[in-house]
Amino acid sequence: MTYRNPVPTVDLLIELDGRPGELVFVERRNEPVGLALPGGFVDEGEWVADAAVREAKEETGLDVELVELFHVYSDPARDRRRHTMSVAFIARARGLPVGGDDAARALVCAPDQLPQPLVFDHATIVGDYVAYRRTGVRPPPRR
Amino acid sequence: MTYRNPVPTVDLLIELDGRPGELVFVERRNEPVGLALPGGFVDEGEWVADAAVREAKEETGLDVELVELFHVYSDPARDRRRHTMSVAFIARARGLPVGGDDAARALVCAPDQLPQPLVFDHATIVGDYVAYRRTGVRPPPRR
Repeated sequence: MTYRNPVPTVDLLIELDGRPGELVFVERRNEPVGLALPGGFVDEGEWVADAAVREAKEETGLDVELVELFHVYSDPARDRRRHTMSVAFIARARGLPVGGDDAARALVCAPDQLPQPLVFDHATIVGDYVAYRRTGVRPPPRR
Repeated sequence: MTYRNPVPTVDLLIELDGRPGELVFVERRNEPVGLALPGGFVDEGEWVADAAVREAKEETGLDVELVELFHVYSDPARDRRRHTMSVAFIARARGLPVGGDDAARALVCAPDQLPQPLVFDHATIVGDYVAYRRTGVRPPPRR
C-alpha cells in the first residue's frame, strides 16, 4: 500500500537591516515564473530550519537568521504541480540579496509596491505577515 | 530524478475543558508502541488543519477546536521508520477521550505524571508546550 502525502517546503519572509517595511522577493526562473518569496523543498534528512537557511542562501545569497516560525500553508491548490505544505519563517539579514539558483533576480520591495502579483499563495502569506506586523496577531490555525 | 522529502505529520496538544494542566495522550497500537500525543500523517489533498482535526477524532473520539499552530518538529531522527516533519497544534475539546484507530487507549494526564516516557520526540514537544504555557514564549525557530 502506498500513501501519498504533501511535500514539505519552506518560504521566507526576509527583513533586511535598514530597510523597514520591505521584504526580499525573487523572480523565479522556473515554472511558475513570476515573483515569489524565497523558498524551496525540504530534503529528506534535513531539519526544516536548515532548509530555510539553505534556500535563502541559494536564492538570495543572504545569510539569514531565523527570527520566528510564522505559520504553515497547506492549501492543496497552492502549487499546481503537486500538493506542497510550506513552513513560513520570518528571518533577518544584512546586506542586499543577489538572485541565484532558481531565482533569476532578487529584489527588495515594500509588499504593497510589488510590480506584479506573487505566484503560489504568496500573496496570502505576505498579507498574513503584514497583518501580524501591524497587530501582533498570528494567523488562525485554520484553513 | 527522484527527490526524497520528509513526510508531513500532525501532533496534537489537546486541553480538555475542566481539566487544567492536563493533556490527552494515547497508547499506540503500532510500532513504536508506547505513549504519545494523538496525531498522524497528512494526506495528499488535505489541509494540515483538517488532518489535525481528523486524527484527533480518529484516535480519541474528540471533536477538537484548533487553538494555535504551535510549532514544527523536524528532527530527522524523530521517527526511526522514516523522516517525518510534524506540525504541532494546541487544541481544545469537551468530554473525555476514547482510544480508536491507531490508539489502543486514550488517557488524560498531567505531563509530569505520565506513567512511562513518550515515544518519538513527544517529550520535547510537551516540554516546549509546558514552557510556553508558563512563560508565553514560543520555541525558537531553530533545530
